[in-house]
Amino acid sequence: MNSIETKFAKLATDNAPGQEARQGMGAVDALLRGDSIPGTPVDFSHGDVDAFLPTPGAFEEFSAGVERGGRQAYTEYRGSPEIRDMLADRLARFTGAPVSGRDGLIITPGTQGALFLALAATVSAGDKVAIVQPDYFANRKLVQFFDGEVVPVRLDYLGTHGAAGLDLDALHDAFKAGARVFVFSNPNNPAGVVYSRQEIGTVAELAGRFGATVIVDQLYSRLLYDGRDYTHLRASAIDPENVVTIMGPSKTESLSGYRLGVAFGSPRVIDRMEKLQAIVSLRAPGYSQAVLNTWFAEPASWMDERIALHRAIRDDLLSKLSAVEGLQARRPEAGSYLFPKLPALDVSTQEFVRILRQQAAVTVTPGSEFGPHSLESVRLNFSQDHKAAVHAIERIVELIGRYQK
Amino acid sequence: MNSIETKFAKLATDNAPGQEARQGMGAVDALLRGDSIPGTPVDFSHGDVDAFLPTPGAFEEFSAGVERGGRQAYTEYRGSPEIRDMLADRLARFTGAPVSGRDGLIITPGTQGALFLALAATVSAGDKVAIVQPDYFANRKLVQFFDGEVVPVRLDYLGTHGAAGLDLDALHDAFKAGARVFVFSNPNNPAGVVYSRQEIGTVAELAGRFGATVIVDQLYSRLLYDGRDYTHLRASAIDPENVVTIMGPSKTESLSGYRLGVAFGSPRVIDRMEKLQAIVSLRAPGYSQAVLNTWFAEPASWMDERIALHRAIRDDLLSKLSAVEGLQARRPEAGSYLFPKLPALDVSTQEFVRILRQQAAVTVTPGSEFGPHSLESVRLNFSQDHKAAVHAIERIVELIGRYQK
Repeated sequence: MNSIETKFAKLATDNAPGQEARQGMGAVDALLRGDSIPGTPVDFSHGDVDAFLPTPGAFEEFSAGVERGGRQAYTEYRGSPEIRDMLADRLARFTGAPVSGRDGLIITPGTQGALFLALAATVSAGDKVAIVQPDYFANRKLVQFFDGEVVPVRLDYLGTHGAAGLDLDALHDAFKAGARVFVFSNPNNPAGVVYSRQEIGTVAELAGRFGATVIVDQLYSRLLYDGRDYTHLRASAIDPENVVTIMGPSKTESLSGYRLGVAFGSPRVIDRMEKLQAIVSLRAPGYSQAVLNTWFAEPASWMDERIALHRAIRDDLLSKLSAVEGLQARRPEAGSYLFPKLPALDVSTQEFVRILRQQAAVTVTPGSEFGPHSLESVRLNFSQDHKAAVHAIERIVELIGRYQK
Repeated sequence: MNSIETKFAKLATDNAPGQEARQGMGAVDALLRGDSIPGTPVDFSHGDVDAFLPTPGAFEEFSAGVERGGRQAYTEYRGSPEIRDMLADRLARFTGAPVSGRDGLIITPGTQGALFLALAATVSAGDKVAIVQPDYFANRKLVQFFDGEVVPVRLDYLGTHGAAGLDLDALHDAFKAGARVFVFSNPNNPAGVVYSRQEIGTVAELAGRFGATVIVDQLYSRLLYDGRDYTHLRASAIDPENVVTIMGPSKTESLSGYRLGVAFGSPRVIDRMEKLQAIVSLRAPGYSQAVLNTWFAEPASWMDERIALHRAIRDDLLSKLSAVEGLQARRPEAGSYLFPKLPALDVSTQEFVRILRQQAAVTVTPGSEFGPHSLESVRLNFSQDHKAAVHAIERIVELIGRYQK
């Protein structure tokens, strides 16, 4: 294969969440044991925005944006200045450190758009980039796409309590080996763990010492359970020029259909991101930008209820999973992902994922998407209809039993 | 400057359409002659969607998409399969060659998104890419961003009649020199000229002979004046694997605020584009995709009227410009751009563009954005309120007079 073919082969999306429709069933027919188990199909590869509806008022804000016409359709590439100023205030309050609406914030097509632009703005061919394992699969793919070199840093989320479990020595080694960019999600996707104040403090200290840029994806930082303490990297002892924070309303707020995200922090990086956005997609959808008026302005009771409902689903699913001998799972402290490590099976995880679809009408994402140390895990986004999710996990438990070694 | 700084410096957007708000006035104060001329501000850098409203029914289709909920919000990365199949039929009819909704079409965030992905999918570091001068400014910037090498091909739009004026010998030379990708807009942006059947035939023949991929941006191919004949490259004698066609409803249909585009053709290239879209923006905005139901399904009278209204503006503006001694302009055969070459002035074109904003409240895009041979030209998108556009062009004519050598 020539170089561009190799490059795109590494971007394989066959097992990516939501792409299962393009995947054949493969040769799992010969492996099947017993009959299918009936039940409402559940797609744990992403949240169900029919179960958890978009923020109240979101559609009305969109409509008002359409009414405003041209000035809402054609904004600066980095987004409407009024909306940027409004967000800068709210995000400064949320994160505990100042945000410049004029120079330090860009509105992007989804959080994915922000992540792409942030890495494009900081990673050149041959650059070493520290990447957590496991972490969101796009982090690694983006580094590979820009011909960077992934320097892995382990997250021992299963063996740690009171912290996420980042191997801080390995992170230090990555910087010593030349990494000048570190990208990670906090809360961690897929493990749902939150980095401790001490872990974040060390990240800030190392970034300062090595002059590194840290890109932190805080997509799930509003959905915290049980009063979990959350430390914003940008509010820690870090040079504001060394950090870019990424957030968006696609998950907790169920606004994914509007494709909105933001990146804020280092004006130097944000400026590059805008230059690139001009040739990638011009801007986040103009009318959609108006929907951000609802963000961080939701009724408090609405957000509290949303968190309580997710916690209840989390606990019910974990209680079912805890009955499986040999299965390991850490209780997520934030977000809506479960990432259980399955017990030893007679089939591979990839095969089991296909079997789950075929025999149980349940879609989960294989752990291989998130790194090489989680091949026996699967990720479930539990932002689903509560009852359907519980029944689906019962089917998973039954099938684990059938295929267990 | 290190390499990534150089790279982003080349992406400068200060003079890009719509970015004028971020630009200071510079030092034109000292150059000003006479008073400002009052009048309604007109921004010719893009079309005015308040003057030419979005397609009837567009907002209603969006609303219906929101109503459909999750399955509209979360589509495959390449877009909803039902909408792709529907578009494949309509685009096959429009272009005169088959389109596969399953494997040969991707929905993107705007036509810009399609262009970015198509070039990313075909251009690696060091690759030579044939680029027309003048042509849409992002073509060149994208090649530079992917570390490709621009091989320029002149378009003598001012000196040609009955064809666009492409230097076919230069294109042949570009392929002989190793270019394996050719990207161009037809109708040409900024010159508004349409490639002749013979020009397109030669492009197809050369692509076949050299095994090159041709990316053709047909954004304005529905807005043709005076019964102008239009040849779709993909329906010419070209291997379907060698061509990707890009279109979208942002211009003629005024749907830019929804951020929609499509690329269709080579399944090999489309497949790569989807893999990349997965890490760039995931998908075109889910609810917006539903708006494509209106595309190529507009009332015929609505489209006829839209074309007639644009033609009338074109003719009025050209008639005013024709009074300026030394100004050269070719009458556009399609689209909504005028690209006059100004007579010799005592100030640079960049300065004159700023003077126009300051003294006449008129925004135009300097020709330097489109290539090195059009430094004395400016581009005007005349999809504007008719009366305001005519008055604005009168102010431009008056100011040309003031600053003419």
